[in-house]
Amino acid sequence: MIHFSINKNLFLQALNTTKRAISSKNAIPILSTVKIDVTNEGITLIGSNGQISIENFISQKNEDAGLLITSLGSILLEASFFINVVSSLPDVTLDFKEIEQNQIVLTSGKSEITLKGKDSEQYPRIQEISASTPLILETKLLKKIINETAFAASTQESRPILTGVHFVLSQHKELKTVATDSHRLSQKKLTLEKNSDDFDVVIPSRSLREFSAVFTDDIETVEIFFANNQILFRSENISFYTRLLEGNYPDTDRLIPTDFNTTITFNVVNLRQSMERARLLSSATQNGTVKLEIKDGVVSAHVHSPEVGKVNEEIDTDQVTGEDLTISFNPTYLIDSLKALNSEKVTISFISAVRPFTLVPADTDEDFMQLITPVRTN
Amino acid sequence: MIHFSINKNLFLQALNTTKRAISSKNAIPILSTVKIDVTNEGITLIGSNGQISIENFISQKNEDAGLLITSLGSILLEASFFINVVSSLPDVTLDFKEIEQNQIVLTSGKSEITLKGKDSEQYPRIQEISASTPLILETKLLKKIINETAFAASTQESRPILTGVHFVLSQHKELKTVATDSHRLSQKKLTLEKNSDDFDVVIPSRSLREFSAVFTDDIETVEIFFANNQILFRSENISFYTRLLEGNYPDTDRLIPTDFNTTITFNVVNLRQSMERARLLSSATQNGTVKLEIKDGVVSAHVHSPEVGKVNEEIDTDQVTGEDLTISFNPTYLIDSLKALNSEKVTISFISAVRPFTLVPADTDEDFMQLITPVRTN
Repeated sequence: MIHFSINKNLFLQALNTTKRAISSKNAIPILSTVKIDVTNEGITLIGSNGQISIENFISQKNEDAGLLITSLGSILLEASFFINVVSSLPDVTLDFKEIEQNQIVLTSGKSEITLKGKDSEQYPRIQEISASTPLILETKLLKKIINETAFAASTQESRPILTGVHFVLSQHKELKTVATDSHRLSQKKLTLEKNSDDFDVVIPSRSLREFSAVFTDDIETVEIFFANNQILFRSENISFYTRLLEGNYPDTDRLIPTDFNTTITFNVVNLRQSMERARLLSSATQNGTVKLEIKDGVVSAHVHSPEVGKVNEEIDTDQVTGEDLTISFNPTYLIDSLKALNSEKVTISFISAVRPFTLVPADTDEDFMQLITPVRTN
Repeated sequence: MIHFSINKNLFLQALNTTKRAISSKNAIPILSTVKIDVTNEGITLIGSNGQISIENFISQKNEDAGLLITSLGSILLEASFFINVVSSLPDVTLDFKEIEQNQIVLTSGKSEITLKGKDSEQYPRIQEISASTPLILETKLLKKIINETAFAASTQESRPILTGVHFVLSQHKELKTVATDSHRLSQKKLTLEKNSDDFDVVIPSRSLREFSAVFTDDIETVEIFFANNQILFRSENISFYTRLLEGNYPDTDRLIPTDFNTTITFNVVNLRQSMERARLLSSATQNGTVKLEIKDGVVSAHVHSPEVGKVNEEIDTDQVTGEDLTISFNPTYLIDSLKALNSEKVTISFISAVRPFTLVPADTDEDFMQLITPVRTN
């Protein structure tokens, strides 16, 4: 029969982090609960949606938690509702006491709230990942890689493998991260500081976005453990499990061109704003494209919607080299690409009107490359 | 054929204000457009949803507008789309030119956007209100009255008159404002500084909420003109028309009790937080009520949901006088009431468990009274 008292705000924060793995609309009703596990060491909050699982540990030793554990046990509570109740409590501390089997009383100030829980035995077991030597990455760096690639993954389930991001470590320190939805591709390469065991995994892009939300910037490093069909990201207090996607990721290296006929360097903000104007009108056209015209060193964007109107504008450039070209594409792909860039300038390189073009940052030496497929128009 | 240039941000702000009267889902398609009227004096932007109409005037003399009018005319443009286009323009000024009948070109920086408009003759005429002596009110005061009453109006169309707020001026300066949905009532009375013609109108609460959004706090006073079935709120640049509700507003004076058996003074914030906790659980009960118990000078709140759990808490009070009482009601009504109060303390007065109770601010001498009907429980 659980009994503990804790700082309300810290408890609430931990609950909200755990909640990111919990969907209130899960097909398996028990997964809408949070599991609260109280041991002598502290409290573990567990949430899962079947794909992602989060374990959040509040240590007895954490002074901010003001944790006083009187009696141990486990219980399941409806996550959303329980969080609302905790956040409504009047005092800075709360007392959590199981008064009879699966029934708890929260006391805070003069308020006393009794809630019905469920038997913790009903909760599915999270598959343990056997401790091996983890890969250790800076949280910031991993979140940056995710931000640069995950957006390019597919959101369509027609080719499930493309909804993931391909992470490959080779030669013990060469990390390649790539995502594509077959219309555009984003690839980041970097050399790790320390040697590590090679791996080749496809992580669901949705899990990676949750990872970025859960691992806040104050968590300096993250340990990464691999198992057959799972990956575990672990910090001091948080264990974040996600299933991996099964199947072979397509060979993307052969898609990346190396010789170009036209190369332009743009200011990222200018180009993005220009594409946002173009998109306002292109979304009212049949093929949804903007036409980029490179002629005598001048670059201009054009959209013509018979119903709504036209955009014609010259885009400022830093440098234009190579052949004249007219190419059409979906401006949303270019806007997404530019958003993922952390640089002020971008270099875009073209082969022809029907071949994919590449984007690379123009003012950093990072190995970050994006690819966008044009649309054939008449 | 219109031609003018203008400061983009000021134009955008005026468009967004006018947009508040425009619904993109209007059953009359022409009402999804904004009408732009260019005269020698300036530009008028007009929007309407059939209930509310807004005319927003940008004067030639307004220096912030940087308005340069070269040629006059009228045109209709799809409001949402036009606003998106204007806000995407790159430069601080924009040039608006009609190039052929109902086709305009916006030029800003190196961007040139051509848009198709519609013939302004298609736009319905807004009924003029003949100038008479207006009632003049401080904008702040009128918005305060709206905030204190409009929330209590009904949102159900079963008794349309109750979806409005009843404004009555009698004896040339006694203003009474009242709204009720038949479960709760809110009434504000005040004495105007200047004499004015008496009136008795019912204004849709939805229109009043829009009024509060449109008339920002920098507009000091508002002139109010009455016509048969319309009312006009006017400031220097904005004319806000709304239809009135037809029919007789019920006599609410007879509902307001004057003798009470129990009176309690609470801290508003404490009581509201207590009711918010109660509501978390009461919303999972059959009748959705909280039970307030007054016994020997101690006030406590109780909810019991057989499925979810219980709340029991003592509520701090400043003063309790009169008889013991147990009364049940919907906590949402009390929460709404407390939100409408601008005071730190509230006095709640009861007659019995089955008669409406009143709320008045305890630390101001404003004539502001709210009424909530209890729910009979067993």
